[in-house]
Amino acid sequence: MIARREVEFLLYDWLKAERLTALPRFEGQTREDWDAVLDLAERLAGNDFLPCNKIADRDEPSLTQDGEVRVQPDLREAMRTWLASGLQLAAVDAGHGGMQLPTVVASVALAKVMAANVSGSAFMMLTIANARVISDFGTPAQVELFAAPQHEGTSLGTMCLSEPDVGSSLGDITTRASLDGEDEIGRRYRISGRKMWISGGGHDVTEQNIHLVLAKIADEDGRLPSGTRGISLFVVPRVLPDGGRNDVTVAGLNHKMGYRGIPNCLLNFGEGMHHRPGGEAGAVGWLLGEPGQGLAIMFQMMNEARINVGLGAAALAWRGYVLSCEYAAERVQGRPLEDRRAERPVPLVRHPDVRRMLLAQRAIGEGALALCFYAARLADVSRSAGDAVERQRAHTLLDLLTPIVKSWPSEQGLLANHHAIQIHGGYGYTRDFDVEQLYRDNRLNPIHEGTTGIQGIDLLGRKILGDRGAGFAALQEEMQATVGRAGADVELAAIGAALDAARREVAAVVDGAVARDDRPAVLAEANAFLEGMGHLVVGWLWLDMALAARQSADPAVAEAALWTCRHFFAAEMPRIAGMLAPLTADAAVTRRVPERIFAAV
Amino acid sequence: MIARREVEFLLYDWLKAERLTALPRFEGQTREDWDAVLDLAERLAGNDFLPCNKIADRDEPSLTQDGEVRVQPDLREAMRTWLASGLQLAAVDAGHGGMQLPTVVASVALAKVMAANVSGSAFMMLTIANARVISDFGTPAQVELFAAPQHEGTSLGTMCLSEPDVGSSLGDITTRASLDGEDEIGRRYRISGRKMWISGGGHDVTEQNIHLVLAKIADEDGRLPSGTRGISLFVVPRVLPDGGRNDVTVAGLNHKMGYRGIPNCLLNFGEGMHHRPGGEAGAVGWLLGEPGQGLAIMFQMMNEARINVGLGAAALAWRGYVLSCEYAAERVQGRPLEDRRAERPVPLVRHPDVRRMLLAQRAIGEGALALCFYAARLADVSRSAGDAVERQRAHTLLDLLTPIVKSWPSEQGLLANHHAIQIHGGYGYTRDFDVEQLYRDNRLNPIHEGTTGIQGIDLLGRKILGDRGAGFAALQEEMQATVGRAGADVELAAIGAALDAARREVAAVVDGAVARDDRPAVLAEANAFLEGMGHLVVGWLWLDMALAARQSADPAVAEAALWTCRHFFAAEMPRIAGMLAPLTADAAVTRRVPERIFAAV
Repeated sequence: MIARREVEFLLYDWLKAERLTALPRFEGQTREDWDAVLDLAERLAGNDFLPCNKIADRDEPSLTQDGEVRVQPDLREAMRTWLASGLQLAAVDAGHGGMQLPTVVASVALAKVMAANVSGSAFMMLTIANARVISDFGTPAQVELFAAPQHEGTSLGTMCLSEPDVGSSLGDITTRASLDGEDEIGRRYRISGRKMWISGGGHDVTEQNIHLVLAKIADEDGRLPSGTRGISLFVVPRVLPDGGRNDVTVAGLNHKMGYRGIPNCLLNFGEGMHHRPGGEAGAVGWLLGEPGQGLAIMFQMMNEARINVGLGAAALAWRGYVLSCEYAAERVQGRPLEDRRAERPVPLVRHPDVRRMLLAQRAIGEGALALCFYAARLADVSRSAGDAVERQRAHTLLDLLTPIVKSWPSEQGLLANHHAIQIHGGYGYTRDFDVEQLYRDNRLNPIHEGTTGIQGIDLLGRKILGDRGAGFAALQEEMQATVGRAGADVELAAIGAALDAARREVAAVVDGAVARDDRPAVLAEANAFLEGMGHLVVGWLWLDMALAARQSADPAVAEAALWTCRHFFAAEMPRIAGMLAPLTADAAVTRRVPERIFAAV
Repeated sequence: MIARREVEFLLYDWLKAERLTALPRFEGQTREDWDAVLDLAERLAGNDFLPCNKIADRDEPSLTQDGEVRVQPDLREAMRTWLASGLQLAAVDAGHGGMQLPTVVASVALAKVMAANVSGSAFMMLTIANARVISDFGTPAQVELFAAPQHEGTSLGTMCLSEPDVGSSLGDITTRASLDGEDEIGRRYRISGRKMWISGGGHDVTEQNIHLVLAKIADEDGRLPSGTRGISLFVVPRVLPDGGRNDVTVAGLNHKMGYRGIPNCLLNFGEGMHHRPGGEAGAVGWLLGEPGQGLAIMFQMMNEARINVGLGAAALAWRGYVLSCEYAAERVQGRPLEDRRAERPVPLVRHPDVRRMLLAQRAIGEGALALCFYAARLADVSRSAGDAVERQRAHTLLDLLTPIVKSWPSEQGLLANHHAIQIHGGYGYTRDFDVEQLYRDNRLNPIHEGTTGIQGIDLLGRKILGDRGAGFAALQEEMQATVGRAGADVELAAIGAALDAARREVAAVVDGAVARDDRPAVLAEANAFLEGMGHLVVGWLWLDMALAARQSADPAVAEAALWTCRHFFAAEMPRIAGMLAPLTADAAVTRRVPERIFAAV
């Protein structure tokens, strides 16, 4: 799925991950330690998660009469094997019993599972992120009761943000928390409300299930504060510390196009049959952090989830590429363009249009993996570098790139999987071949954890206009450094010049946006900026990888990286100008178009 | 689904279809006659086909133990209602009992059903095209026995081209035909072989099923001729004229991502259990036309099918647009960009990024419908105009545009349906909402009846290089005429100038391709040309529609057309240069990239 040679190129040749061992947090770790964890992930992916990927797609989770959610049994067993393996501890602090490996190494391990079974991996990424939030913000008792079981493999975790009527607009949530007292765990509340789109919201993998729930604390008159600043975060376990069941019920399952191994639930809090005798109505939850901090805390989990959504999309794109390569080498069809009357048909890979679709997939799959691993490495530096300036710079870059890391792999990954189906022809459209499922699975990624539209506004509004282009200036310095290094290489210098031209195009747009005193007008075309900026960033990474390829010890992977870089600059970078056009034109169509035209259908 | 006002704009305001009544073939017909047929189609679509669209997706066809294919019962009934309605006779010659309406009118009727239930419509388009081929090339007995039942509604039809190992490369088929004698129906053969991807290859809608089968006639030594010129076409009925069953068996069903209402079969000819006592082995079929003419005849059906694939994709894009408009008007979420702190959330349509996705869908859906209807009108003129020069010109334009009509709606329609899901958010990813199915259904369209890759080579190889740009010259004259008419309109004159600039870009590529004496090198980037040319053609149609909108009696539809034209020129036309880049760069990556890099995974 994601072969070791690919990982070695990205992680060691290109990202020089071993340099992280110079940071105190990773002191004494060796590449061999990391490789052992990657071996473990590879075994789990290949032996446990891949074999049930299609089965768990076909036999999606079901809700039993008594309100329990059944996960497809093979996937349930794979999850238990994973929990028992301790792989979830890869990046966890040693103080919490973890291996304390770099995030970038843990990300590679996760990506291997994602490529094999993305919906299974979703259980994991939610659990890991949930436990980290509790570890970072919880009281010692909360960490012990709610994070430790997830680290130890006896619980899974969820994040509960959306509601049936509230998707992207979290300020409007109506889930309610009423103070119920204080105990050794913390401030105890009764939670009531409905949470929608809860992945892993019910399951029979582990008995315990730790929900992190956004809710609003009612004032004395029972009113909820308005807007996002009134949101607090609560830990709501399925099983209470006394062993009883909390009042959390699965009200229904969503039936998805793909990503079907993991249940996606409508969860009712405090509306179920399990009112505790003598207790108040409502599910029992404990406040995490301070009142009103909910969204700020949750966004730590959300940012991590966004990077992992990008990573999952990248892994699906890469797997489609690998399957396409195999099929294109084996399947014999048609005559070469150079010899239309040849006696025998040739393998698909001989046709330039098939090679185009293979290169496009490689550019997207490997480019998106590179983008996500780069972001994970930034996360490591931003948290653990000794130098505060270095930490801050990594933080700024990661903050700027996060919406791109979330959306570029998600949107482009679909295109990659589209090509994978196309290479398989009619067979690719059937459920007998795996590419069909990749395409359906991947379609979720532009939606969950913030739609592409939300990412565009985050990028242009918060990350560009919000700091008047300061973060983008840092990014440009990184790009210019790469261009500088390319200058000594005859071929790559030309590609560097093309990158620099594209950078200037985007910079001109940024300058115009910052200078323009009409934020709504600029934000109206945020998607165009996200699209163009995504291509610019990945183009930069491709040049940077091509430079690393010149030094790589694996000539086959190096050659592939160089050709993919050439492809990206021949076929993709020229598209940036077109992507940015709505930002530079003064038509302002999306703002000016009257709503009534959409009634004329 | 496709509202009457939309049809009136496209068919009457823009395409001026009523002028066709001046042609002898349509003499005496009135708009009222046509509207009655459109009413019938609308009733069938709304009452019969839409209600079972989702059900037939869920309960896909099954193969019974005794080899019969069960179609979902509601869809089966809808098909029978359609057959009884006579709608299949819309464009059929009066001499064959048809209504002899213009193809463009019949296409509008078909599109209405397609928007409601595309897999149901596939039965229809195959049946109509099958009967037309037999009517055009068959002996009187063949027409009577095999076309008439399809016209009368007692049979459906199929086209049997591909084989398990032969998809796009038909010269390699191995289905064999051996002469079995001559009777009053024609030259009788025994057919043996396996045909793959046969839509409607088995069903329980009608007892009879007429297969048109490509096969090769064995020589005296039993050898099959090589290449496409050895291919002949045979009519192979499921039920023989004597009432017995022919030796055609369904060996298996393909399980598709979408398009699931219609069974897609592996058909065995002459390999089943039904050997006739005393007869030779093999299914009984009669030669249609002359030996070796098979592919030429089948391409009449194929060209019609290609236009209808585009039409189906367009209809699905349009339906997604209509559903998106409804949802975006109803669903309330988030605050407007102009007032982020507004107390109440606003309907989705208020957000510019949602309007962008609505406009994109309208531009694709209506643009693709316009493209297909324009092609259908060209088909009418090419067959029925009194003037030979006019007929020839229409034929040339249709020939040039067919690969674009097939592929632009198919590829862009997916993007439109992607936007439709995105507007619906998480709900759009569930099977509770219709947009999820549209996306899966539409994914077939870039594959069947010639993949997008095949269309690119057809366009650039046969339609451009094949005539050294003569057909493209005719197309450019049409475009220039539109630009000329736009000159009198202040706003549209500027759009006309942009169109003309894009036309010159594409023309420069064509000139370069024609001048270059290296056909394989040019064809290696055929997809880039198909992409750029598709956008150019649809941009031209949008300008042409905007001009028609200035004169339209329906101000709401006219306003929508004008805004959609503005959107297309602001957001889509600037992409053409990027699309064409691989044709103008000298990188030639897809040709030069060594195959071995695809082994390095």
